[in-house]
Amino acid sequence: MHDIHPPRTIVLTGDRITGPLHLGHYIGSLRQRLKLQNEAQQYILMADMQGLTDNGATPEKVSSFLFDVAADYLSVGIDPAKSTLCLQSALPALSELTLLYLNLVTVSRLERNPTVKSEIQQKNLSRALPAGFLIYPVSQAADITAFSADIVPVGEDQLPMIEQTNEIVSKINHLTGKNILKPCRAIVGSVGRLPGSDGNGKMSKSLGNTINLSSTADAIQQAVYSMYTDPHHVNISDPGKVEGNVVFTYLDAFCEDKLLVQEMKENYRRGGLGDVKCKAMLNDILQSLLQPIREERQRLINDKAYLLNVIEQGTRQAREVTQRKLNELKSALRLLIID
Amino acid sequence: MHDIHPPRTIVLTGDRITGPLHLGHYIGSLRQRLKLQNEAQQYILMADMQGLTDNGATPEKVSSFLFDVAADYLSVGIDPAKSTLCLQSALPALSELTLLYLNLVTVSRLERNPTVKSEIQQKNLSRALPAGFLIYPVSQAADITAFSADIVPVGEDQLPMIEQTNEIVSKINHLTGKNILKPCRAIVGSVGRLPGSDGNGKMSKSLGNTINLSSTADAIQQAVYSMYTDPHHVNISDPGKVEGNVVFTYLDAFCEDKLLVQEMKENYRRGGLGDVKCKAMLNDILQSLLQPIREERQRLINDKAYLLNVIEQGTRQAREVTQRKLNELKSALRLLIID
Repeated sequence: MHDIHPPRTIVLTGDRITGPLHLGHYIGSLRQRLKLQNEAQQYILMADMQGLTDNGATPEKVSSFLFDVAADYLSVGIDPAKSTLCLQSALPALSELTLLYLNLVTVSRLERNPTVKSEIQQKNLSRALPAGFLIYPVSQAADITAFSADIVPVGEDQLPMIEQTNEIVSKINHLTGKNILKPCRAIVGSVGRLPGSDGNGKMSKSLGNTINLSSTADAIQQAVYSMYTDPHHVNISDPGKVEGNVVFTYLDAFCEDKLLVQEMKENYRRGGLGDVKCKAMLNDILQSLLQPIREERQRLINDKAYLLNVIEQGTRQAREVTQRKLNELKSALRLLIID
Repeated sequence: MHDIHPPRTIVLTGDRITGPLHLGHYIGSLRQRLKLQNEAQQYILMADMQGLTDNGATPEKVSSFLFDVAADYLSVGIDPAKSTLCLQSALPALSELTLLYLNLVTVSRLERNPTVKSEIQQKNLSRALPAGFLIYPVSQAADITAFSADIVPVGEDQLPMIEQTNEIVSKINHLTGKNILKPCRAIVGSVGRLPGSDGNGKMSKSLGNTINLSSTADAIQQAVYSMYTDPHHVNISDPGKVEGNVVFTYLDAFCEDKLLVQEMKENYRRGGLGDVKCKAMLNDILQSLLQPIREERQRLINDKAYLLNVIEQGTRQAREVTQRKLNELKSALRLLIID
């Protein structure tokens, strides 16, 4: 009998390991991964090597968060029986593919990558740009192609990465005359980036404006009650602005009763709805969302042996997959493979 | 009882695998390796990954010469029981170390590397510089440090590479607070570069001016008799120029009777010694040097299974050494090691 199941769609997703995950990750990617793990073969890459590309001189910023991030994943419902968690630095095929691909990508092509350009600016790296950071799109191409990912969930700003990956795919397939690498497709999340609680740009540990999955009830409440709203909305009866008002952005993201949020917005605009009332509601929503996550996370973080086991098992599985792809490419390039 | 032997000096040497080896390699490095293999722990890295850095689009230029180069080594007397032959692309730790080091080296530091700068010019790469080529000094640093080499034999033009390697050594040791990487020392060969038979620059396959270790007796003779001498030395009785005269450069390199060469030079300068006589002598010397090498080489190239075995054994040994160094560094960076 032949296998009548069509091949499962392969998804590669993951995070730079540079801190615990927060509500921005939850809305932007974790929720989607919970869905995807039931529909596809999902690999979640714990990207410590990528974390080091701009933390080369402070590696503890990366290494110290590995178990936190693993606990974050599992506490929101990522199921190691459905999703494969794996550690980037423990997958040598990814480094080997990166070095092979680097010979097919010019320096000027890397310098033109819009994502890298804007990140260099954001991180103020221009004067002392680490070479590892300049080439990280190639490293991502290695990640994506090593897993033969069909789909890569990304933010809008990461689209040039996918483009660069598919350029490498074309070059390699053309060069070897075989379809060794699979082109991938980006799926861009329907939800935009969650702003920080201060309303400034995106949620980011370094800006101190995050609500982590592990935040205490007090910390959540404090973050919500100090959220940026409309500075001109002084009295409850004043008309208020909803756009740029972080409380409403969060309500849009986290309140499931969309009709209620719509009514509140109208009320707020008209005048008559106070910030405190809105914040109390948001606080309730976030507390109910995060309490079970925090409790489960605490349980997990106390069971490091289990977390280690999950990472090890997944990484060994991923190692087989990525090693197979590397060997396929090496064979096509007629490089000698030595067991 | 304690081991009373001092640790052996470790030497790393090797060649980009981009063609069969020639007399330039023999004089510049192979002769020295024959000596070093009796005095030190010598690793000979068959650098196919480095060969790809400027042959990314023509990988067959690299892969097709692997057995040729192995046969070249053994035919001149490299002894696999004394020297460890190993294949760069089959040592994943080298790629992993390269990516780790790249985070500690800035792009502008790489762009300032004098060796890379002049090679970019020589190879006419400036318009489409492959990223792999720009970063190859870091890849070399990975090679050298992975083997904990004390000594690296290089040409004068490669000294900036050693400098860059030792910069990385300092950074890593400073960062980890441990002496994980060993600084290395260059030894620059006493013999300068052997010019091509046409007198133009160095011997190079692409210039078609090489005498390979595998060249036939006819090809050697033809190369010698068409060598560039002194174009103004028309009649035997004319005074001739020795400087820039390729025949004399080769006699200096290959004739063991230094006094005889000295006399011939004086005679040539004075007038009275013809080119044909000099060439006949050089031809005799090269024929006697290369005939046994060529025969042994032919025997070896017909025994691919043996060559493969030598490469495999050496590579497995090198894999242990390099993997151990990688794990030491990963531990110091507190990266998780998964077996």
